[in-house]
Amino acid sequence: MPLEIERKFRPASFEPPGTAVREHIEQGYIAIKDDGTEVRLRRIGGSRVLGVKRATGGEASVRVEVERELGEQEFTELWPATAGARLVKDRYTFASAGVTIHVDVYQGELTGLLTAEVEFGSVAEAEAFTPPDWFGVEITGVRGYKNQTLATRGLPES
Amino acid sequence: MPLEIERKFRPASFEPPGTAVREHIEQGYIAIKDDGTEVRLRRIGGSRVLGVKRATGGEASVRVEVERELGEQEFTELWPATAGARLVKDRYTFASAGVTIHVDVYQGELTGLLTAEVEFGSVAEAEAFTPPDWFGVEITGVRGYKNQTLATRGLPES
Repeated sequence: MPLEIERKFRPASFEPPGTAVREHIEQGYIAIKDDGTEVRLRRIGGSRVLGVKRATGGEASVRVEVERELGEQEFTELWPATAGARLVKDRYTFASAGVTIHVDVYQGELTGLLTAEVEFGSVAEAEAFTPPDWFGVEITGVRGYKNQTLATRGLPES
Repeated sequence: MPLEIERKFRPASFEPPGTAVREHIEQGYIAIKDDGTEVRLRRIGGSRVLGVKRATGGEASVRVEVERELGEQEFTELWPATAGARLVKDRYTFASAGVTIHVDVYQGELTGLLTAEVEFGSVAEAEAFTPPDWFGVEITGVRGYKNQTLATRGLPES
């Protein structure tokens, strides 16, 4: 999936529905560039993934993403390159109101932060989406809530 | 091959032997970190490769390397992230004196630069290697001759 079009929100609280699938995620950034391009290592469930995302400019929520599986040894050898740029979270995934919702429950220094994300097939679909009340304030494209920022600078002030 | 142990030299001139295999290489760096970790895109012959190298500290010539093939579209979409950090070269590979030698003939702004590299299975083998006269001066670990430096800063002054 080369293009990623998403909207992101900050719920005040979250009770996982019984249908939600929970995954534990540890991720760290090998590189974060000024233009938003990021190189990420992620351990999710039993798999390990190297990912590169590039902001395409213009529409802030549209990004190019490439991911590849890594072996355990490869992951372990590269992981030290993410020092100082890591985060841990549980991700709950479930369907609701015709879309797939990911709710991330952050841990460690970010404990208390919740985010809800929905990915769309087109910008038109993204714009047509009406978030449920519990989604709270929208933080799509807000730099302080990007995972790359959270991993390096912690929670935003406000 | 997770570990890379190599020695590198700067020949003054080079005449490819008849047995040499020639490959055209275009490479660009998505990220180059202060600790030497690099994230690279490389088009070599008909293949496209995403590579991550991490310096392991201590022995300068020992590095961890992970590479994955990319599709043409993935490569094309990520390539703009390498702007300002690219180089082009022809690589000649051949066996001589019991080792495999790579000679890189740089192009574009780096025209005139030649480098010869040999990879080894162990540090002991690397230390035991006696370079042929035509290899010229040794530049193993010299920062100015690293491809990541050449791609961003051009030829070293001296």
